[in-house]
Amino acid sequence: MSQIAVLGLGQMGSALTRAFLAAGHRTTVWNRTPEKAEPLVAAGAEQAGTVADAVGASDLVVVVVPDYATVRALLAPAAARLRGKTVLNLTSGTPEQAREEAAWFEAQGAAYMDGAAMSGTRLVGRPEALFVLSGAPEVVAAHRATLVALGNPVSVGADPGAAALYDTALFGLAWGALAGFYHAVALTGAAGVDPVAFAEVAAGHMPFVTGLMTDHARQLGTGRLTDDDGTVDVHAAAMDHLVETSRSAGVGTQLPLAVRELLARASADGHGGDGIASVVEAVAASAGEAGRV
Amino acid sequence: MSQIAVLGLGQMGSALTRAFLAAGHRTTVWNRTPEKAEPLVAAGAEQAGTVADAVGASDLVVVVVPDYATVRALLAPAAARLRGKTVLNLTSGTPEQAREEAAWFEAQGAAYMDGAAMSGTRLVGRPEALFVLSGAPEVVAAHRATLVALGNPVSVGADPGAAALYDTALFGLAWGALAGFYHAVALTGAAGVDPVAFAEVAAGHMPFVTGLMTDHARQLGTGRLTDDDGTVDVHAAAMDHLVETSRSAGVGTQLPLAVRELLARASADGHGGDGIASVVEAVAASAGEAGRV
Repeated sequence: MSQIAVLGLGQMGSALTRAFLAAGHRTTVWNRTPEKAEPLVAAGAEQAGTVADAVGASDLVVVVVPDYATVRALLAPAAARLRGKTVLNLTSGTPEQAREEAAWFEAQGAAYMDGAAMSGTRLVGRPEALFVLSGAPEVVAAHRATLVALGNPVSVGADPGAAALYDTALFGLAWGALAGFYHAVALTGAAGVDPVAFAEVAAGHMPFVTGLMTDHARQLGTGRLTDDDGTVDVHAAAMDHLVETSRSAGVGTQLPLAVRELLARASADGHGGDGIASVVEAVAASAGEAGRV
Repeated sequence: MSQIAVLGLGQMGSALTRAFLAAGHRTTVWNRTPEKAEPLVAAGAEQAGTVADAVGASDLVVVVVPDYATVRALLAPAAARLRGKTVLNLTSGTPEQAREEAAWFEAQGAAYMDGAAMSGTRLVGRPEALFVLSGAPEVVAAHRATLVALGNPVSVGADPGAAALYDTALFGLAWGALAGFYHAVALTGAAGVDPVAFAEVAAGHMPFVTGLMTDHARQLGTGRLTDDDGTVDVHAAAMDHLVETSRSAGVGTQLPLAVRELLARASADGHGGDGIASVVEAVAASAGEAGRV
């Protein structure tokens, strides 16, 4: 069992600590306001009086604080204790910040992983809680068995910035799906459909939609954007219908209009008869104009 | 085993016929250009020379043709044979068209179900192929055992227009998710991430996102929009970050800007400190302004 320190006992840090304890890891906690440690101490954690003591007591130091500036402010005074330790930084930030932090920790003689918790705090400790991790493959591999206590740790690249990039990209993916769902709930709701009844059918449809993502990624990988799931122009016509239906029902058209714009751009770029995965090129190529919105 | 007629042998009609045959149903097919029936006859279907003969030979008449006008043009000459039959119309159209069609078929003495195939043609016959059905519950129930041959038939309401409404709403849901995915692929792709590698992580994240839909529908049902998954204002700030990150990476911002607008509207309506499911109200209330885009 590993010796773990958790620095930062907000909702996430507390959930991580409980999951480590539940898996039998000796876990030392530290928080700026020490009272937050009390329920965790009651659950079996040890409490350190200083960050340096927490670092000294552990092999793996997990940091989850509000921002990267706080990470550095907390760890700099403990720099002398970092040699030989591994740091997993789950603090939210940009890829650039993650790379800078990796360089700093490595300069102190510590191994560094960056990461992001993708599934909120409630699922922490369950196998479906996704954590994306980035950093040297051997460092991630060395701690995988420990981090399984938190859920599903997935390595997304050796570049320390990869986890932050995935975090941002997966946030956009989640919001696309949620915006689609909220729009659908508003549209069916305008016709008197109960949200729970609609959600049951929607949830049954999502594995199919997820399968399209996997198929379309494979198409993009090979460069053959087949129209098995309909062409850009066919989907554009159906999206026009969704815009009109939404207007008639008195609900907003923000999402369908954004998708309609992407389909129109893909069509204008000569992909009207291609599969819908060609919309990726429309997104990749359209920053200039979108930036003027 | 039921006696089934399939009218219209495009990709969908042909797939339906093969699934019925595979399940052991006696299936009679008709198509305007009779040659399209040949591979199905080779697979065991019977071919009718006229729509009236196809209807006469069956208990359940499945129609999947380009539009509702074609449905009526085909079936009106066979009206005398419709009494006592059940029609399942899988032709794409609006809720209003479905209601009119139901009234016309019922006037001929036929029972009517409307429906929509949600999972394309490739999955037809597999348990994950979703078909939404609407019509009188006893009619849907009477044919459920037969329709299981096609996949997963789900009844969405007694109103004949419900299937068309769900069809449109689920299309919007699917596109929200796909647009989110395409945006994420473009964003990670700009940093050199392979689409297939990203899709693998994304697919692992989608069950969590789908779980949020179910949770948020339940919240909307009770009216308590809790912030367990973050507040509107916290997500709006993160969406600003996604917009900036997208611009920096040189990829389009259509989707994040549309979501940002919905979050801004929810916040302006006083939901800044509420859970993100309150975006549904922003969609439901924003038709007027969105209509001016």
